[in-house]
Amino acid sequence: MSAAADRPHARAPLEWPGGARCAASFSFDVDGESAALAAAPGTARSLSVMTHQAYGPRVGVGRLLDILDRVGVRSTFFVPGFTAELHPGAVRDIAAAGHEIAHHGYHHVRPAGLDPEQQAEQLDRGSDALERLTGDRPLGYRAPMWDLSWEMPALLAERGFLYDSSLMDDDFPYVLSPGEQGAAEGARTLVEIPIQWALDDWEQYCFLPDVTELGPIQTPAHAVELWRSELDGMREHGGCWVLTNHPFLSGRPGRAAVLERFMADVATMSDVWIAPLGEIARRTVEQAPAPRGLPRIEP
Amino acid sequence: MSAAADRPHARAPLEWPGGARCAASFSFDVDGESAALAAAPGTARSLSVMTHQAYGPRVGVGRLLDILDRVGVRSTFFVPGFTAELHPGAVRDIAAAGHEIAHHGYHHVRPAGLDPEQQAEQLDRGSDALERLTGDRPLGYRAPMWDLSWEMPALLAERGFLYDSSLMDDDFPYVLSPGEQGAAEGARTLVEIPIQWALDDWEQYCFLPDVTELGPIQTPAHAVELWRSELDGMREHGGCWVLTNHPFLSGRPGRAAVLERFMADVATMSDVWIAPLGEIARRTVEQAPAPRGLPRIEP
Amino acid sequence: MSAAADRPHARAPLEWPGGARCAASFSFDVDGESAALAAAPGTARSLSVMTHQAYGPRVGVGRLLDILDRVGVRSTFFVPGFTAELHPGAVRDIAAAGHEIAHHGYHHVRPAGLDPEQQAEQLDRGSDALERLTGDRPLGYRAPMWDLSWEMPALLAERGFLYDSSLMDDDFPYVLSPGEQGAAEGARTLVEIPIQWALDDWEQYCFLPDVTELGPIQTPAHAVELWRSELDGMREHGGCWVLTNHPFLSGRPGRAAVLERFMADVATMSDVWIAPLGEIARRTVEQAPAPRGLPRIEP
Amino acid sequence: MSAAADRPHARAPLEWPGGARCAASFSFDVDGESAALAAAPGTARSLSVMTHQAYGPRVGVGRLLDILDRVGVRSTFFVPGFTAELHPGAVRDIAAAGHEIAHHGYHHVRPAGLDPEQQAEQLDRGSDALERLTGDRPLGYRAPMWDLSWEMPALLAERGFLYDSSLMDDDFPYVLSPGEQGAAEGARTLVEIPIQWALDDWEQYCFLPDVTELGPIQTPAHAVELWRSELDGMREHGGCWVLTNHPFLSGRPGRAAVLERFMADVATMSDVWIAPLGEIARRTVEQAPAPRGLPRIEP
Repeated sequence: MSAAADRPHARAPLEWPGGARCAASFSFDVDGESAALAAAPGTARSLSVMTHQAYGPRVGVGRLLDILDRVGVRSTFFVPGFTAELHPGAVRDIAAAGHEIAHHGYHHVRPAGLDPEQQAEQLDRGSDALERLTGDRPLGYRAPMWDLSWEMPALLAERGFLYDSSLMDDDFPYVLSPGEQGAAEGARTLVEIPIQWALDDWEQYCFLPDVTELGPIQTPAHAVELWRSELDGMREHGGCWVLTNHPFLSGRPGRAAVLERFMADVATMSDVWIAPLGEIARRTVEQAPAPRGLPRIEP
Repeated sequence: MSAAADRPHARAPLEWPGGARCAASFSFDVDGESAALAAAPGTARSLSVMTHQAYGPRVGVGRLLDILDRVGVRSTFFVPGFTAELHPGAVRDIAAAGHEIAHHGYHHVRPAGLDPEQQAEQLDRGSDALERLTGDRPLGYRAPMWDLSWEMPALLAERGFLYDSSLMDDDFPYVLSPGEQGAAEGARTLVEIPIQWALDDWEQYCFLPDVTELGPIQTPAHAVELWRSELDGMREHGGCWVLTNHPFLSGRPGRAAVLERFMADVATMSDVWIAPLGEIARRTVEQAPAPRGLPRIEP
Repeated sequence: MSAAADRPHARAPLEWPGGARCAASFSFDVDGESAALAAAPGTARSLSVMTHQAYGPRVGVGRLLDILDRVGVRSTFFVPGFTAELHPGAVRDIAAAGHEIAHHGYHHVRPAGLDPEQQAEQLDRGSDALERLTGDRPLGYRAPMWDLSWEMPALLAERGFLYDSSLMDDDFPYVLSPGEQGAAEGARTLVEIPIQWALDDWEQYCFLPDVTELGPIQTPAHAVELWRSELDGMREHGGCWVLTNHPFLSGRPGRAAVLERFMADVATMSDVWIAPLGEIARRTVEQAPAPRGLPRIEP
Repeated sequence: MSAAADRPHARAPLEWPGGARCAASFSFDVDGESAALAAAPGTARSLSVMTHQAYGPRVGVGRLLDILDRVGVRSTFFVPGFTAELHPGAVRDIAAAGHEIAHHGYHHVRPAGLDPEQQAEQLDRGSDALERLTGDRPLGYRAPMWDLSWEMPALLAERGFLYDSSLMDDDFPYVLSPGEQGAAEGARTLVEIPIQWALDDWEQYCFLPDVTELGPIQTPAHAVELWRSELDGMREHGGCWVLTNHPFLSGRPGRAAVLERFMADVATMSDVWIAPLGEIARRTVEQAPAPRGLPRIEP
């Protein structure tokens, strides 16, 4: 009975390059104005709120791209189609810097609140917007407000998406077979790269009247302490650590400076493999874990 | 007038094994999907929310069982019947590891919001679900959302439950006589093992859109500092310290690692007796403290 | 231009015994069940909530009385009449220990939400309840929920109350003339001993479903750091520091232990005069500062 | 790949006196009663709330003026017209101490919730109130609740205002041309000095029943750590750091003492130029950066 006792490794379904215990990805959700407009349409009247959101693509993205360059990290940026069309320069800069651009809805509306036709429309409209700007259709998807519907995995698989990153039921990526349970062999599948609320800057920093007033804005030191504690846990237990930052929040100079130091620290950890989500998804597919159906609970 | 002055021990109604000043229990509420569904039925539409909740029985329980094994602590897991049926493997694993399985409602609905017939139905349905899986009817009960009704103590006593752990008016367990005040000698009684909000991981970690958005998610270090400060107070004053963790929250790698270190610390304290709640209840009954009626306030 | 420069003492309208720079009072609001019932009547159905509130008079008051005795501090306890009638032993214990018992409404309803007749009824009913238990009518008043009405100062003055402690517009006590502005000499007046939200344990510790869910419960160390920083400011600037704790919150063993150490610290500060509010009020009256009318703003 | 690597200075559109990397302003929003009355008119019934707000102009302003004098900092105070008329002495004291007095609405209502005529009426009424007290019409404006409308920039420019300080889309001040995009040369412009939510004491300290209950009140040490981290980020990246304190919050002795030490620290930093906002605006105009139109998003 000792805290330092050796730990069994009951479940390590995947192996990472270089024998790393833990994969890590520094992802970004470039919400911009759409996040406020979808959550509270009345914020359209507020120039203050609109500019608060615009700070992300206007200023934050550039600063974060500089930081990623300095620390030598490649990342994934999830961009709603509406935001991409409003700030095409930010999207082109991200692509030019060699990072992955992925899908984050069109109007940043929660899929779980839409019927399947509306979901498909938002999905295709968002892919079209990104393709027009970058020449490529996105291969990764993350649900706006992290609120994936039951129908979306099939919609994604049908369209050839490689992965989704919106679910919360595992420490490791897995292969999801979104048809009925026990789907026929050869059915289209999707990699799921799980996230969780503690690894998000929104709950630490976001104050947005009429949208979210989560209580005292935390210091960057507090946020990084939290994210680091979860990373350390994953280095111990194995897993895939996915951090999400929003440029309209973490692009601010003070937060960005602390995030840069944190990224630089993680980049020195020999037991951590840092990669964009697309590479993590491919690495998962290569190992061909048994696909998993949707949960059995009836919605 | 000194802070270090000897402290009188005005009330120590119970004695613990080995002369410990303080009993301690690391209990778990395995809510799973039911906690979200009962609080906000619309979350059924959200695959993200459902998987966030499923993380508890799917991943968290196994990790926590490993930890309990390593630190040599036996514990009590409160499981709603609905969750038990959806995740029978988790329940069997808990039982196989030698921990106590106790009742946490069927649909995780708050008893105080139900009429007595509905309460009885939820109670029996939950007991049946657990018995089918483990072979035993549970002896302990904790109200979903920690919201016990005035009728439930009698319902529990009539069914032969040994204890409830949902009330908040004492530092020590006590014997509750749920009939009218001054109930006749020989009436059925129940042990009450009190809890309190500061000894719960929900208020530190839970962010669940449409259910609870309690403000900035805290670090595990902050949570453990809070729980430890209350434990230290009880070591000074005497009492029974009952911590509650939720596997969907504290089963995450970073939180689990910090919790393991904390458990290992407590396990070295010679003035603290760690036990499952069922053993604490039996220890209480053995000392036969005078039973107490329900509070006099008219609901 | 230096932070260490001597500070002018622009306004020190009152002097404290022994040349202390700062008066201090450790006051308690013994809300009990009434605080929950008044804020959310439906909590009457919840035995968990009722017992959470009952912890204050049942357990917390006794522990806090022991602590006050050990650190040699006399205090003021504000008790709603309803709570006094439900827990008469707690009230008698407070009085027997030599502390001041003051008025905190009858049903703990916010005066600002009542018409003047209802306010008077709550006021007299509360005084009657306390007088029946202690033999004395209370001389001090604090509004439930710290929500004083415009009419209450006159109602208090007419009844011969010595002081109120519910307003927030000064660092020092003052004499309030609750009639119209420039009230005639000789009109009844009242001492006002101001409070403020940062000096209250409610905003640090209170989690009460359906009543208040203020975000992550803080550690006692955090709470005391906040209270201490304000005390240090008042030692620098002069003033009257009034802390309010609720026995249902700060009577818990861990919080009480930290509070005891803090009280013991303050008791060693030679520049701080600790007293019950009644003594502070009398000390104010003796210095006969010019009375002040109600603010000019039209409600 | 090192955190200490030299940082490119991609965008430093403005230069500050003495070669400072960062401009800084300690601004104050003297809301007083109007902030509560506009957000929740029912608070007019509460003498406690009204006095809580009155603390700002009654006590806080004087203390903060003393502090500014001791640390040798000149500042900008935004005062709603209603508050100025209710507390004229505070406004005269601010002016007499040589600080800038600027416009903060008349009734502290959010412009984004008003039609253009109402906005103009609030604007002119507020200017009239300040001019009657100080002899000067204000040259700077900040929207109540930091909620600027799309129409207000043109209303301000038409009236000859020098600057606004309510938007959030940049680290540096800029020149805003509020007419249609690509406004004709010579059209009236306005300097915008951006702010952001993390540099505000409201989110750290404000607890105001029925108006805002943001969670546990933070310590002054926490607030200053947050503000300092953003200042350090701006010293690294360049920018204009604008802190906002409310005298009803930060005028309290403990918070004021910590703020004074922080101000004194910043005053020793050779890479930071501290100035009132009006001077920062003039410095911006002198460098004649290319004007920017309103964002393209259709409200």
